[in-house]
Amino acid sequence: MATYDDNNIFAKILRGELPAHKLYEDADTFAMMDIMPRGDGHCLVLPKKPARNILDVDPDRLAAVMRTTQKLARALMKAFSADGVTVQQFNEPAGGQVVFHLHVHIIPRFEGVMLGQPGGPMEKPEVLAANAEKIRAALSAT
Amino acid sequence: MATYDDNNIFAKILRGELPAHKLYEDADTFAMMDIMPRGDGHCLVLPKKPARNILDVDPDRLAAVMRTTQKLARALMKAFSADGVTVQQFNEPAGGQVVFHLHVHIIPRFEGVMLGQPGGPMEKPEVLAANAEKIRAALSAT
Repeated sequence: MATYDDNNIFAKILRGELPAHKLYEDADTFAMMDIMPRGDGHCLVLPKKPARNILDVDPDRLAAVMRTTQKLARALMKAFSADGVTVQQFNEPAGGQVVFHLHVHIIPRFEGVMLGQPGGPMEKPEVLAANAEKIRAALSAT
Repeated sequence: MATYDDNNIFAKILRGELPAHKLYEDADTFAMMDIMPRGDGHCLVLPKKPARNILDVDPDRLAAVMRTTQKLARALMKAFSADGVTVQQFNEPAGGQVVFHLHVHIIPRFEGVMLGQPGGPMEKPEVLAANAEKIRAALSAT
């Protein structure tokens, strides 16, 4: 497995060098909107500390990521009156990974609506901002 | 969300009422082969205690499930000389969930090989047994 590359886009977001639609942050984790969503409200949870993926992450940091993932999953159900949630986590290019900083995808799901393709079109910033606002409101109501 | 149904097939497996190709077990978690694999070596991690999915599980049990998921992900890479690993976790029917006891899917991935369809054909017991043996060997070598 390749080593962690400090110049991946999520590392840049975590350092504040690139913008993001931030949803949540605690000591160990950071959550934001996916800018190429596979469904309305698709968001991501990352550990703040460097980790390429599930193969090298510290187990306690993975636990923290999943704690935030659970918070987000519950918030998405509420924010979008979703029927379900799909959680995905990809490791290495063959596993579906595109950005090499560990991240968990959380996608609200609706009866009869298929997931969009990965790497699909970039969502409009105003749609991402409006969805982020809904999710933050649901998070703060818990 | 519906409440936990004690008669789901994973609850029966955990009670020893149905067989499984067991891979690993600790105080909080149980891992086994998926009998309808979306790829060779597809396995599942479950909490032992009842939880319908990520929406109702106790956060510490979710952390335990992910600790075992990480062990399995590493073992799959080794056992199958895999190029990557895909981790998925489905919540509610719209989210892709079919059995209503929380479980995480861990699938070894290979360059150029697509994931099979979910709910595909049942794998032959001898193939599942041989793959389980490889995974157990990789787990015990760590």
